[in-house]
Amino acid sequence: MDKKDLPPPFLDLVRDDLVRSEALLHRRLPDQHEAIGAAVEHLVGSGGKRLRPALVFLSSHLCGAEQEPATFAAAAVEMLHTATLIHDDLIDGALTRRGIETLNASWTPGATVLTGDYVFARAAHLLSQAGNIRLMSRFAETLMIICNGEIRQMFDGRHGETTFAEYERRIYAKTASLIALAAESGPILAHSSEEQIAALRTYGEYLGLAFQVVDDILDFVADEATLGKPVGGDLRQGLVTLPLLKFLAVHPDHPAIRRVLDGDTSRAAVQEAVRVVAASPEAIGGAQAVAEEYIRRAKESLHGQCFRPPHGERYRAALLSLADFVVRRRF
Amino acid sequence: MDKKDLPPPFLDLVRDDLVRSEALLHRRLPDQHEAIGAAVEHLVGSGGKRLRPALVFLSSHLCGAEQEPATFAAAAVEMLHTATLIHDDLIDGALTRRGIETLNASWTPGATVLTGDYVFARAAHLLSQAGNIRLMSRFAETLMIICNGEIRQMFDGRHGETTFAEYERRIYAKTASLIALAAESGPILAHSSEEQIAALRTYGEYLGLAFQVVDDILDFVADEATLGKPVGGDLRQGLVTLPLLKFLAVHPDHPAIRRVLDGDTSRAAVQEAVRVVAASPEAIGGAQAVAEEYIRRAKESLHGQCFRPPHGERYRAALLSLADFVVRRRF
Repeated sequence: MDKKDLPPPFLDLVRDDLVRSEALLHRRLPDQHEAIGAAVEHLVGSGGKRLRPALVFLSSHLCGAEQEPATFAAAAVEMLHTATLIHDDLIDGALTRRGIETLNASWTPGATVLTGDYVFARAAHLLSQAGNIRLMSRFAETLMIICNGEIRQMFDGRHGETTFAEYERRIYAKTASLIALAAESGPILAHSSEEQIAALRTYGEYLGLAFQVVDDILDFVADEATLGKPVGGDLRQGLVTLPLLKFLAVHPDHPAIRRVLDGDTSRAAVQEAVRVVAASPEAIGGAQAVAEEYIRRAKESLHGQCFRPPHGERYRAALLSLADFVVRRRF
Repeated sequence: MDKKDLPPPFLDLVRDDLVRSEALLHRRLPDQHEAIGAAVEHLVGSGGKRLRPALVFLSSHLCGAEQEPATFAAAAVEMLHTATLIHDDLIDGALTRRGIETLNASWTPGATVLTGDYVFARAAHLLSQAGNIRLMSRFAETLMIICNGEIRQMFDGRHGETTFAEYERRIYAKTASLIALAAESGPILAHSSEEQIAALRTYGEYLGLAFQVVDDILDFVADEATLGKPVGGDLRQGLVTLPLLKFLAVHPDHPAIRRVLDGDTSRAAVQEAVRVVAASPEAIGGAQAVAEEYIRRAKESLHGQCFRPPHGERYRAALLSLADFVVRRRF
């Protein structure tokens, strides 16, 4: 077993919890069409890091939320994440994710749209079983933020014209908003103070921003087998992410990059651009420094809060270790 | 003013309510991209019968639910209906609805998928403001039923092989489930007895089944200007609805019908098939008789219930009159 495959230690604290939320994710409903059952099984069975449900459980333990609502919330957040991926992959025309075939690779667009809708509804239904209106409201707001961000990117996105503020706004909508929802689920379910809810939300926002920056770095430096999809995918779609922004700040007219941004998305052109960015300390080191600053702020937000004894300190330490893990991960 | 344009009398009882729910439907949110704002405005501004919000208000008054939660629920149900239409029109490739252009007629499939998702989220968010977990759970279940029904039709639908039981199951999922949700919203918000919730739900289910049968009749007999879309649309998609089922029961091998079901969806072939079915008393009269039987059962479900004085009788009478209206409507 390769060292990177060892589970990070914070997962030990929520291992039993994750078994329960997995069972909810795999449960088939009586009237559900077998094609939906197979699709959901295929998608939730493909693994993924389960970062979001782990966060729901860690923040729930931290603040003393009850087990059953936390389990429904954890499954709901992962199911919502799955639903957004189904429609994203359809829109992007992606054929693999996490090394397995996407739904749209073999289904019609219509069936893929409807299955995504079904999975949204299933997520909302799971969450309703947690019995917390405030969390349901935040859930709906989060989906609005995600869709709004993607539509903004679709209508306003210009090749090569992204600023850092635009990039941050986009990855907040795309990734950090849902990770923040997972992190604030615990204190919301536990009816904690507004201060603690805000602290966990801030933690989740910065953790999510860092998570996406690392994803964007890996899209340049990872190998395809580890990544489970082709590298350079963002670039191929004309999407300027942080490593490239950092690269363009020092080499604004590099021909290998210009070529791709001007529309040559051939395999050779993308591979050359990826190689150039991956080899640049300004690009990779610069982006990594931003991720580390986000993680510093995520950890800072948990300082000075007095979480529920007797286990508060243990779960705070787990959240701090999870933050370190996110910025160091290489898969 | 043509007689059919006169508003049915039950609408008078909820006119002020509908003004409030319309205001919620048209409200733009601060961070919302202007393209979404314009799309939602275009869609909810195109009118529609507002049957679903009217039902939420009538059942709320009937059972004594409070005004503010009822208003959020009414707007949420109409918004959910709008979201399902966005994805339906995309999947069907429909270019007009209610006489105006659909979103997918001018937008990319990706933008249309995302806008539909946004509108789902907006509907869930509106409903969360009604503050009732049971209603949110029913809302999610209803969306699961709708998507499941469409997927079943997509995977299992065979030209000409529909039975009445399959037809009824399909229109329950497509139309009656959401109308039943609207009708049961009032007693759920009012925390009425389980018996009253079940009575209103049954009313809504039969009302919804009748509503769809009438829609399916109009797809053969209406004129296009009144309908706001081309007639014969179901037939063109190979969809066998009740008038055609009734027709095939007496003329199983009529050449004009066989031609279309065997795949000739030219304008001339569809027009001829529509003409043949529309002229058949077995087809149109037979389907109308089924709708009337549904309406009889819808009205029957409200008998023997003692609704909240002093206005209970007035709103029960309105629901009975709405049922009569649904089966007589010609638009």
